[in-house]
Order: sequence, then C-alpha cells, then structure tokens
Amino acid sequence: MFESAEIGHQVDKRTYDKALPAMREALLEAQYELVRTQNCQVIIIVSGIDGGGRRESVHRLNEWLDPRHVETHGMGAPSDEEQDRPPMWRFWRALPPRGKIGIFQGSWYSLPILDRVFGRARKIELEEAMTRNVQFEKMLSDEGALIIKFWFHLSKPFQESRLKALEKDPRTRWRVTERDWEHFKRYDKFRKASGLAIQLSSTAQAPWYIVEGSDPHYRELMLGKILLEALSMRLKAKHSPSHSISALPNLPKLDQQDILRSLKLDQAMEKAEYEKKLEHWQGRLNVLTRHPNFEKISVVSVFEGNDAAGKGGAIRRITAALDARSYSVIPIAAPTDEEKSRPYLWRFWRHMPRRGRFAIFDRSWYGRVLVERVEGFCTEYDWLRAYNEINDFESQLTSHNMVVLKFWLSISKDEQLARFKAREKTSFKQFKITADDWRNRERWDEYEEAVCDMLDRTSTEKVPWTLVPANNKYAARIQVLQTLCETLESALKHYKRPAKQFS
Amino acid sequence: MFESAEIGHQVDKRTYDKALPAMREALLEAQYELVRTQNCQVIIIVSGIDGGGRRESVHRLNEWLDPRHVETHGMGAPSDEEQDRPPMWRFWRALPPRGKIGIFQGSWYSLPILDRVFGRARKIELEEAMTRNVQFEKMLSDEGALIIKFWFHLSKPFQESRLKALEKDPRTRWRVTERDWEHFKRYDKFRKASGLAIQLSSTAQAPWYIVEGSDPHYRELMLGKILLEALSMRLKAKHSPSHSISALPNLPKLDQQDILRSLKLDQAMEKAEYEKKLEHWQGRLNVLTRHPNFEKISVVSVFEGNDAAGKGGAIRRITAALDARSYSVIPIAAPTDEEKSRPYLWRFWRHMPRRGRFAIFDRSWYGRVLVERVEGFCTEYDWLRAYNEINDFESQLTSHNMVVLKFWLSISKDEQLARFKAREKTSFKQFKITADDWRNRERWDEYEEAVCDMLDRTSTEKVPWTLVPANNKYAARIQVLQTLCETLESALKHYKRPAKQFS
Repeated sequence: MFESAEIGHQVDKRTYDKALPAMREALLEAQYELVRTQNCQVIIIVSGIDGGGRRESVHRLNEWLDPRHVETHGMGAPSDEEQDRPPMWRFWRALPPRGKIGIFQGSWYSLPILDRVFGRARKIELEEAMTRNVQFEKMLSDEGALIIKFWFHLSKPFQESRLKALEKDPRTRWRVTERDWEHFKRYDKFRKASGLAIQLSSTAQAPWYIVEGSDPHYRELMLGKILLEALSMRLKAKHSPSHSISALPNLPKLDQQDILRSLKLDQAMEKAEYEKKLEHWQGRLNVLTRHPNFEKISVVSVFEGNDAAGKGGAIRRITAALDARSYSVIPIAAPTDEEKSRPYLWRFWRHMPRRGRFAIFDRSWYGRVLVERVEGFCTEYDWLRAYNEINDFESQLTSHNMVVLKFWLSISKDEQLARFKAREKTSFKQFKITADDWRNRERWDEYEEAVCDMLDRTSTEKVPWTLVPANNKYAARIQVLQTLCETLESALKHYKRPAKQFS
Repeated sequence: MFESAEIGHQVDKRTYDKALPAMREALLEAQYELVRTQNCQVIIIVSGIDGGGRRESVHRLNEWLDPRHVETHGMGAPSDEEQDRPPMWRFWRALPPRGKIGIFQGSWYSLPILDRVFGRARKIELEEAMTRNVQFEKMLSDEGALIIKFWFHLSKPFQESRLKALEKDPRTRWRVTERDWEHFKRYDKFRKASGLAIQLSSTAQAPWYIVEGSDPHYRELMLGKILLEALSMRLKAKHSPSHSISALPNLPKLDQQDILRSLKLDQAMEKAEYEKKLEHWQGRLNVLTRHPNFEKISVVSVFEGNDAAGKGGAIRRITAALDARSYSVIPIAAPTDEEKSRPYLWRFWRHMPRRGRFAIFDRSWYGRVLVERVEGFCTEYDWLRAYNEINDFESQLTSHNMVVLKFWLSISKDEQLARFKAREKTSFKQFKITADDWRNRERWDEYEEAVCDMLDRTSTEKVPWTLVPANNKYAARIQVLQTLCETLESALKHYKRPAKQFS
C-alpha cells in the first residue's frame, strides 16, 4: 500500500512558489462555484501517521479556502453528550450541508486503527469496522457527497530520523514527547493495521490518496491539486453521480519519481557467481518441497513484467528444481470461449493447485488492470473494481494456507529495445517477438502508470509484490529463487491449520 | 423477515392447473432466447428450511426447463479435491457459462448459517461471511450474471404438524428421521440465523425471494413466475446492467393474502376495560423509568400507520405516563432546508436521545420507503438501498443499548373514511384532515404494497415491527403501551454493558 509513498518524493521551493498562487486562485474559484451551485457537500478526511503533516494540511486548507464555507472538525475523545449516543452520531452531526466543505482530522477510521494497533481489537473487528465505513461512505456518496480521503505517510527510517533531529535541536526538543516514541515503537503495527484499513476501504467511490509526507512542498501541492481536481471534476459533471462511479482524479504526478523509476535496474552479477548461487537455491527449493508440512500447503506464484523482461527464463529456473508431477505452468494469453463466457476470475480459479503443488502463472489476473485497462478491453468501472476483487481473491487463497508470491520483472526501455532486436536476429527466438510487442512498447508510459497503480493498490501485507530489477537476467533469476525459498521456508515453519472457513 | 411467509398463502388446484401450461411455455421460450442470445448466465439459489420444498423446486425447474441448458449442483459435503482449495473454489468451478442456467441447492449460504445454528461460529463470523457473499454476488452481477435467490420458509407450527403428520402415516413414517426432529429443536435458532443472513445479503442486485413453502401449488407458481419475470426483464434490457441496478421483479401476488390483510383489525375493547388497563400500563411504564438501569439505556419509538390510524392518540397515552423532562416527541413532516441539504438520515440522527430519555417519532425514516417511494420523491435506486441503510442505522442504535420499537397502526379503508368524515365535521379536528390525506387514500393499494415490502425487509430479530390493529382505538393504545412496557422490562432486566464499539 505504502511503497509509492516511501521513495522520497520532493518538490523544490521554486516550483512550489511558482505553482502555489495559481492553485490557490483556482481552489477559491472552485469553492465559490460550489457555494453558488450547492452542487454537493465535500467531506475531506485528513489522516495518516504522526508527523506526516495532518495538522499542517488542515491549516493550509483553512488558509487557502474561504473559511466561512469550511467546517473543521478535530475529533478528539468523545464528549459525554457523544458517549451517550452510538459512535457514528458525532460524525453525523458534523456532516456539512451542500455547498460547504467539512474537514475531518480524526474520523471514522481513527479509533478502529488505533484499537487494533494497541491490541484492543482483533483483526476481524478491524475488518468489520471497515465494512461499516465502506457502507457509510457508499451511502454518503449515493446521497451526493464528494468524499476525499488523504493519508499522509512517512517511511520508518524517515520517521526515526525526524524524531531524532527534532530532539537534538534545543528549539524543537519540546515537540518530541514520550508518546511520539511510544507510537514509533509501534510503527510496524501501525503500518500493518492502517495498510489493511486502507486496502479494505479504498473504493471507487471513495479511494484513499496516499501522499508521502516528508517534503512539505510536495505534500502541500498534492493536497491542493487533488482537492482542486476532485472539485473541478464534480462541478463539471452534469448530474449528480448517484450510484454511478463518482469521477475522482488519479494521484497527480508532481515530480519525475515513481516506484518503478526508483528501482536500480542494473544489478551486478557475473555468470560464475550466478551458477553457484543458482545451484544453491535450486537445491534448497527442492529440499523444501520434501518438508513434511509441504503436503499441507500449496504455492501460487505470479510472474508479471515488461515484455522481454525474462519471465519465462525465471520460471524455468524454478521448475528445474521441482518434481514434474508437483507443478504446472499456466501461460495466460487471450481467454478461450469457455473462459470468456464466465466472470474473468474463473479462468484463474480453475487452475488453483491442490495441496503439495505449485501453480506458476506466466502473466495472470493482473491482466485486468494492465493490458485490459491500457488497451481499453474493459471499462474503467471494470478495472477499478478489479483491485478489490483481486485483493479479496488472494486473501481467500492465503487464508487457505496457499502461499502466494507476485513478481514484477522490470527492465529499462533501452534494455527492452536491445532484447527485441536480438530476438528478431536469432531465428529460434523470432517466435517470441510479435507486432503486439512493438505496439505495447509505444504505450510504455501508460503501462508504467497502470503498473504503479497496480503495485499501490494490490501490494498487501499478506501478498506483497516483489519488484525484480531485471536488466541483469542472472541477478533477476537469483532474486526470484531466493524470495521463493525464503517465503516458502517461513510458511513451512509457521504452518498453522487454516482457520475455520465458511463456504 | 419471514412474517409475510407465515400467513398461509395458498393457490387452489384449479388455479394452478390453469396457470401452469402458459407459464411453462413462456419459461421455455425465455430459456431458448437466453440460449440464443447468450445474454447472461443465470444463477438460481434454492435454499430454505427442511421440508420447505427445496428438493421439489429443483425437480420442478428441471422438468419445466430444457435440461440440456441447465446445470444442477446439489452441494453436499466437499470432496477431497474441494477441501484442498479455498471454500469458494467449488462454487467457482460450478459457475454456468453465459446462456446456461445453474441451479444451486446448497450454496455459499449453507455452511455459514448451519455453523451458526450449531454453535460452531460466532455472530460476527456469520456477518463476515455475509459481507463476503455480498461482495461475491456483486462481482458476479457486475460481470453480467443474473442471480435469483429463493428461500422457502415454513412457520414453526406448520413445521411441527407436518412432521407429526408424516410420522403418523405408516406410508410416510420413513421420511421423518431423527435428524428432522434434531433440526426442529433448533427451529428458533435457525430462523434467527437465517433471518440475519437474509437481512444482510438482500441487496438490490441480488435480493432474496422468501416464499412460503407450505402449499405446493403456491410455492411452485411463485418459483416459476419469479424466474420467468426475472428472465424476461433481463432479456428485454437493452444493455448489460453492469454496475447499475439489475432489474429484478417484485414478489408476485398469487393470492389475495398479504401480511396487512391477514390482520384482524377489529379488536373488542370497551371503554371501561380500556380505562382500567390504561391506568395499569401507564403506571407500570412510569415505574419502569425509575428502574436503576434506565439511566443506562434510551428508548426510540417509531409510529407509522395509515392516515387517521390514531398515532397521535397512542403517543399521548405514552407521554402522559412520563416525566416531561425525559421525552421528546418528534413529528416528521417535510424536511427543512437544513435537512434537505444533508443525507436523509441526518434529520433523524440529530434527534437521537441521550441516556435515560425517550424519543418518540410521529412518522420517521420509514418515509423514505413509504411516501417518498409511492409519490416518486426519490428514485427506485434510492428507496431500494434505504432498506439496508435503515437496518444498519437501527442496528447501530441497538448495539448502543438503545431500545428501538416500531409500531404500524393499521385501520381498514372503511374505518379511515369514517374517521376522515368525522374529522371534517368537527371544527377543532378539521386541521387534521387535508387534501393530502384524500390524495393518499386514492393510492391505498400502492401504499399497502410499500408497507408490506417495508415490513418484510425491515422487521429484524433485534427490531421487529409491531403490527397494531387499530380500528378500535382503545385496543390499539393498550397494545402499544403493553408492548412498550414489556420490551422495556426485558431490556432493563437483561441490561449488559454495550460491546466495545469503534469510532
């Protein structure tokens, strides 16, 4: 969930100063149109980690907007009036009327997440709370409200150095309290609980905007731009979106950074080192499949990546270590007639392996949010809902003691060109390069955006994506094998009988 | 949930024999159009209580339809192949392709409900399973599937006499096993668990059809008619409904019975008896408000009913017994500007009482599914989603130790006419009768349908509707007071601190 907000997004002061006046003017204009047309009510949730910029963002919004039409709610501990009523009462009474903007610092997300972090609630209770939040927001949205949810994030190393820096400086020391360190100790728990909360409550009607909070210029421009674009889209929409998908903007791009570009693609590894390591990890993998617990689990691994990134080669290095009866490789191309006439996940469900087996997907269900999205084979509504459907699908697998791994093999545009040309030159490799590959290459940027969205929306605690720099095939294959072995090892070691499940 | 399926619906053999041939012909025609157009896949779930007619219904469908395009799945215990995969795998593999009809006897509802009935699962687990089912069906429906869910119900007395009758007859004795009596012992638990499951999984995209199963003629015609109408509506729809609401039929009317008509409206009670009872119950109510636990709960009571049914009079008999500081009566008329500019439940949330207080609503949030539906003040989508929103709202109240009571005061059309005329004649009552009242009266049948749907969809285990025959005002008032006292008494006696709640 948070990977894209841990790569050091930045905007320099000059760019910020240049962009700000126009943005503020446009925001005010949009706000006045909102007031004039009474088009909808706007609900802004400002959440995130300590020090991520929640308080500053609320100040900024009040500075930028006409405060006469803004209602800010800092929701702390409930009053006795509030405790007398059901928990949602305080939020209901604070709902803004049409034409106004309500800012919630502290919302219907705060307590469920904190209760989980501090061990006062079980996972199922957090999940239940998120189901209720989704229903609540669906109702608000059906009633015409525009809901914009911001999550300001800081990486763990950044958070630590931030606290230390504040503490070192006598002028800011007072700002670091014991509570801050107390919270920092729970960083991982907080990241896990809030990641799950965000995953479960990021809907097409009310998605979360996860914004890296370390650089104030970046953070503030993101805040303003997202709000501005969301407002403009809504004001332009002819009729209330009601039960259709509300038009909401994608995460704006303010710098040249994204999670793919932040990867170092050229890893060093020579053939001799590769062959030694290959033998080591293949041997280890084979031993793992003879672990007594292996008959109680199964393994699903997914390979996605740029064309010519070396998916097939990596897969063959895995299967070489396995008993032929224990795996199947499922290459995913265009769906068959049988498959087309059923819901799109059916073609993947049918290949789910039995206990003690591997299923290795060469491309996968992620086609829905990659090629189908980019090529327009399905509607925006279809690929937007697919993120949640896929997360739900994979969580059904992991709850059933299936080990799910997802690899994204990443090569540079230049490296791809070189490989395409090499394929064309080698007669026995020509079948691997088609007109489609060249066509896809022309849409490189669109695919990159789709891949980044996919990583953000489907890299979950239980089933994270493994990003594999693949300009060097050797290094890529070893990383894949090693990740597979280590994940498997941990699953075998921590094997527990699956929780009771309903069908 | 089940009230409308416990009133002895019947269709006589002649009517049945007359209706059957045309229905079968139309069903076959619709099926062939489905096959020809490959418009969608049809998923029929056949569920319900033992003896309610599940097996017979599946047979009937296979008899009526061309079996070459029907796939019937009797889902029993999972095979070892199935146990190796996540629980939903067996249902995925059984999904019919477009153009076919898949019948599921035993579905993704069976285990969650049975696990709850036999104490193997907690309530929250049943709720979680229903959330998953709703997501699963939403996905199927978004993918174009038509989902029709039948629940065949029998009342407890009917079930008991059915089993006894079978046992008595030597020719049928073999049909009653110990398992049947074992299940009958759990009738109440089953009714409760399945009621909750149905409430949580009745969505606009895939509502449950609850059919009284005692009379085979009625049951079979309902089965055929609902299927036929759902198919016809879908085949007529120009484009796939995708994320809009699928057009699905209302419950057909096959006899002249409905839950309102099954009420005996003329209760006998003379003035003397009334005055005695009134004093008794008012006294008791007053004593209850001084119970030590009363400061820990609050009471919300809702009065709905036909125009001139005596809501105001009943309310005054309650408030007369209360300390003026402890209650407020909230008459609901047209919303104010303030209220109109917020989601519709806001105007009710704002009146939720503190601990130790009563809020008495003279008309209520049910306006959404009554007047707003009938008069077209909101769209079909809006009032369809309101059932779940209201159930969710009320369950938030009860989870917070608020006692919620809902009264429907029912008078006959003749009695209403008499009262209208009387009001017109009495000068100090003329304000109570307006042109609106006469207009509403002209739509009596439409209101009746809306009321029956409301009772079916929002009478829940925790917050049932109390139907009050009100042709005799005395009897009606006493029934209201007595119900209030007894409900309150039980709540005070069984008071538990509210479970931990989020946000």
